[in-house]
Amino acid sequence: MTEQSSSRLNIKDISFINNIKSVAVIGPSKKRNYSFLRSHAADFKGNVYAVHPIVKKIPDYDPNKIFPSVREIPENIDYAWISVARSQVLKVIDDCVAKGVKLITIFASEFSDSGTEEGIELERKLLRRAKHKVRILGPNGMGLFYPKLGIAWRPGFPTTAGNIGFIAQSGGMCNIAIYGASALGINYSKVFSFGNGVDLDIVDLVYFLSKDPETSIILCYLEGIKENRIDDLKLILKQNEKPIVVLKGGKSKSGSIAAKTHTASISGDSQLWTAFFKQNNIIEVDSLEQLLNIARLIDYYGVFDLKNVAVCSVSGGYGVVLVDILENYGVKVPPFSSDTQKKLSSKFFMPGTSPKNPLDLAAHFFFENFVHCIVEIALSDTNIDGLIIDMPSFYLTPIFSRSRYNQSFETKMIESLSLGHKYNKPIIPIIQRLNRPKDRERVYNKLVEKKVPMFGDPLEFIPLLCKISEYKRKQKER
Amino acid sequence: MTEQSSSRLNIKDISFINNIKSVAVIGPSKKRNYSFLRSHAADFKGNVYAVHPIVKKIPDYDPNKIFPSVREIPENIDYAWISVARSQVLKVIDDCVAKGVKLITIFASEFSDSGTEEGIELERKLLRRAKHKVRILGPNGMGLFYPKLGIAWRPGFPTTAGNIGFIAQSGGMCNIAIYGASALGINYSKVFSFGNGVDLDIVDLVYFLSKDPETSIILCYLEGIKENRIDDLKLILKQNEKPIVVLKGGKSKSGSIAAKTHTASISGDSQLWTAFFKQNNIIEVDSLEQLLNIARLIDYYGVFDLKNVAVCSVSGGYGVVLVDILENYGVKVPPFSSDTQKKLSSKFFMPGTSPKNPLDLAAHFFFENFVHCIVEIALSDTNIDGLIIDMPSFYLTPIFSRSRYNQSFETKMIESLSLGHKYNKPIIPIIQRLNRPKDRERVYNKLVEKKVPMFGDPLEFIPLLCKISEYKRKQKER
Repeated sequence: MTEQSSSRLNIKDISFINNIKSVAVIGPSKKRNYSFLRSHAADFKGNVYAVHPIVKKIPDYDPNKIFPSVREIPENIDYAWISVARSQVLKVIDDCVAKGVKLITIFASEFSDSGTEEGIELERKLLRRAKHKVRILGPNGMGLFYPKLGIAWRPGFPTTAGNIGFIAQSGGMCNIAIYGASALGINYSKVFSFGNGVDLDIVDLVYFLSKDPETSIILCYLEGIKENRIDDLKLILKQNEKPIVVLKGGKSKSGSIAAKTHTASISGDSQLWTAFFKQNNIIEVDSLEQLLNIARLIDYYGVFDLKNVAVCSVSGGYGVVLVDILENYGVKVPPFSSDTQKKLSSKFFMPGTSPKNPLDLAAHFFFENFVHCIVEIALSDTNIDGLIIDMPSFYLTPIFSRSRYNQSFETKMIESLSLGHKYNKPIIPIIQRLNRPKDRERVYNKLVEKKVPMFGDPLEFIPLLCKISEYKRKQKER
Repeated sequence: MTEQSSSRLNIKDISFINNIKSVAVIGPSKKRNYSFLRSHAADFKGNVYAVHPIVKKIPDYDPNKIFPSVREIPENIDYAWISVARSQVLKVIDDCVAKGVKLITIFASEFSDSGTEEGIELERKLLRRAKHKVRILGPNGMGLFYPKLGIAWRPGFPTTAGNIGFIAQSGGMCNIAIYGASALGINYSKVFSFGNGVDLDIVDLVYFLSKDPETSIILCYLEGIKENRIDDLKLILKQNEKPIVVLKGGKSKSGSIAAKTHTASISGDSQLWTAFFKQNNIIEVDSLEQLLNIARLIDYYGVFDLKNVAVCSVSGGYGVVLVDILENYGVKVPPFSSDTQKKLSSKFFMPGTSPKNPLDLAAHFFFENFVHCIVEIALSDTNIDGLIIDMPSFYLTPIFSRSRYNQSFETKMIESLSLGHKYNKPIIPIIQRLNRPKDRERVYNKLVEKKVPMFGDPLEFIPLLCKISEYKRKQKER
C-alpha cells in the first residue's frame, strides 16, 4: 500500500475500546425490569452507572450509582448505552459530548430505518450533535459485547473471551450468534451490533478488528454499505491478514427490500458483491449457520487447504455418498499410497469391508483400538490432508453399550478423533442427529474440549471446507 | 402405456410379501448371540424358526422351533433369512427351493462385490440354483424390514407401520434410515436392502412399491443398475403415480470406484443419471439426510407447490437471509395483498418491527396470541402458498420462562404452527440447534405429533422445497 492511499483512508479510531473503564446506561426501563442496565452491570469489572431523570431507586441496585444526568457522574465515562425514547436522544448526546464520553450505543429505532423524511433527518442530526467527539454505534443497534471486560447487553451472554470478532447491523443476528457460542464451542473477542450505522460502520469496525490483537477471525453480517465507503473498505482489506467471513443480507430482490426496512441499507447488486468478495479474498457464506461453522472450523484447525482427504464410514453406502459430496465440492478422495494400503490391509480382517479410500469399516468400528490405528495410518500418508469419519448415531444405542460400547470405548474414540491435532490435519467426525440426543451431546462436548468439530450432516460442513481451502490458496498467492 | 410395451415388462412378482405368514432364520450365529434370529422373532406375529445343522438349544428360544434343515420344518415357510457362510449358501438355496420358500435374503458378502472371478461366478450360480422358484434379496444384503408384520433384521427397529417405502442396496443406509425414523417423525411401510441384487433389483422393488397399497412415497438409495434393466425401469416409471426420491451413490469418479467395491455396482455416467431422473420426474437429492427430510415434508403436507411464501422472523436480519435463500432456490417472498397488509398493520404496535413480508416480529413474538393471529392472516392471503417461521433457540431459555415463556405460551405456539393443516398450506418452523436441546426436543416432538416439520437450519430444507415444488409442477403437466 502506498503512502498516498494510506493517507486517504477515512477511519474512525476506536482503539480505546480495549480500555473501557466505566459504563453508563442512560434511560433504563422499569417496564423491562432494567434488563439492559442489569446486563451491563452483571460482569463488568468497573463501575456501571444508571442515568435517569427521575428514578432514584432501582431494586437490587446501588442507589449511589444512579444519577439524573450523565454530566453529574463523578467519574469519567468511556461507554454509554442509551435506551431513551427517540425524541430524547439528541439531548442525551449533548450530555455525552459535554461529559467526554468516548462511545455510545443508541438502541432506539425509527430513524432512517423508518424510511420517513423525518427519521432520516433526525439521524443526520445525531451525527452533527456528536461532533465526532463521541463515536456512535446505532441507532437501531445493540452496541458492544466484550466478554473480556464483561460488557454485555443481554442477560446470560457467555463470560468466556475468545478470538472471534463478529460485526452485524442486526442485533437479532448477534443475539443468535452470542447465545449459540457455547453450543458451537466458540468464543468471541468482541461483537458489534451497529444498526443503521450513522457513525461507526462496517468499514471502521472491520478495520478495528483487523488491528485488534484479541481477534484472529472476523465474521460479518452485512446488509449494505454507503457508496462513499467502498474505497476505504478496499484499502483496509488490502492490509488485512486475518480471515474475514461475510454473510451478505439482501442479495435477492425481495431480500434487498427487506434489508431496507430493517436497517435502511441499500444492499446493491448481488453479483457485484460476490465479485467484490472474491477479489478481496473474503469468504462468503449463505447462512448464519455457515458463518458460525466456518468460524468453528478455522478456530479449531486454523485455515487449511484440504485437497485430498481420507473418508471412513461404518456404512459403505454412506461412505460412497460422502465421497460424491466431497468431490462435488472439489475435495478429492484419492487412493492411499501403496505403503499405506499395505499397512491398512494388514489391519482389516472382516469380509465385506474395504481398506481402500473410502474406508468401509463396518463392524471393525466397534473394536476399541481399530479406529485409532486406522486414523494414524491414514493421516501418516503424506498425500492425505485430512479425514472425514461418519459414525452412525445408532452406535450410541444401548445395543452397543451392552457388548461393545462402554466408557473406555468412548474415551478411546475421542482420543482417535483428536489425532488431527497431532498430525496437523483436520479430522471432522459426523454423528447424525437421529438417535440418543443426550449421548450425542456428551460426545459432542467432549470433542469440543479437544477442539474437534463434530457435525450432524455432511452438507452442513463440506461446502465450507471448500471455501476455507480456496481462501488459503488465494492467501498464498498474495 | 400400450399393450405391447406392457407385455415386454420383465418384472418379478413379489406381491406375496404382504402375506408372509412364517419365517425361518437359517444359520443363526452364537457369536452374535443369535441377534438376527432374535430380531426377526421379536415382533413377528407368526412362527419364526431357527435352522441350524447342529445347534439344538438357543437361550430363551423355544427348542421346538429349531430344526436342522428348512426342509424339516412342519409348516410352509414364506421368507427365509440366510446367514450361513458363503460356501454353504448354494446348499441352503437348494433346501429352500425344495421347501417352497418364496423369498430369501442372503446376508453373506464376497460374491460379485469382491471383484474376483470366483465371487462373480458363485453369484451367477445362486441365481441358477434358485431357478426362479425362490426370489432372492442379496447377496450382501440385509433383506426386508416390514413393521406391519413385525419383520425386522436388527434389534430396536421401530414397530409402527407407515406409508414410506425405502429401497437401498446398502444395509448400512437402511439401518441409519430405520433407526432414525422416530426422531424424524416418519414411519415405513417396507424397507428393502437388496445388496448386490442378483435377483430382485431396484426395478422389481420400485415396481412392487409403486403398486403396494401400503406405500405412498418411495425412497431409493441406488448405486447402480444393470444396463438391460433400464428399459424396464422406464416403463415402470411411466405408470408410476407416487413420488419417488432418489439418492444416487457413485456419481463422482472416486465415488463410483467406491460403489463398485461396495456392491459391485457400475454407477455409470452421472450426467446421464441426472438427465434420466429429470425426464422421469424423479426427485434427486444429494444426501441421505435430504432423502429422509423430503419424505418427512411430503408425508406431513403431501406434495405441494410453493411459489410464494410468507416469512416470519424474530430477528429482522435472519428474516432477510431467509428471503435470500428462498429466492435463490426459486421460492418467492412477495408483498402481501393490500387487504392482508391492512389487517397485519392493525396488529403490529412496536417500533422497529415490520408488517411487511418478511414479517419482522421482534418482541411481538412473545405475546401469546400474536403469532397465531399473524399466521392466520398471512395464510388467508390467496397469493401465499405457505409460511416459514424462524424462532431463535434462545427464546427457550429461562430468561423468557420467567416473564413470558410458559406452558400456555408453548401450547399456543404449537397450535399456531399447526395452522398449516387448516389452510392446507405448509408451515415450516426453524428453531436453531444452539440452545436448550431438551426444550427444543420437547417442542420438536410436540410438532411431530401435529405433523409439523421443524428444522434447525434453513439450508437443511429450503433446497428441498424447490425440489418438491418442481415435482408437483411436472406431475401436473403429465
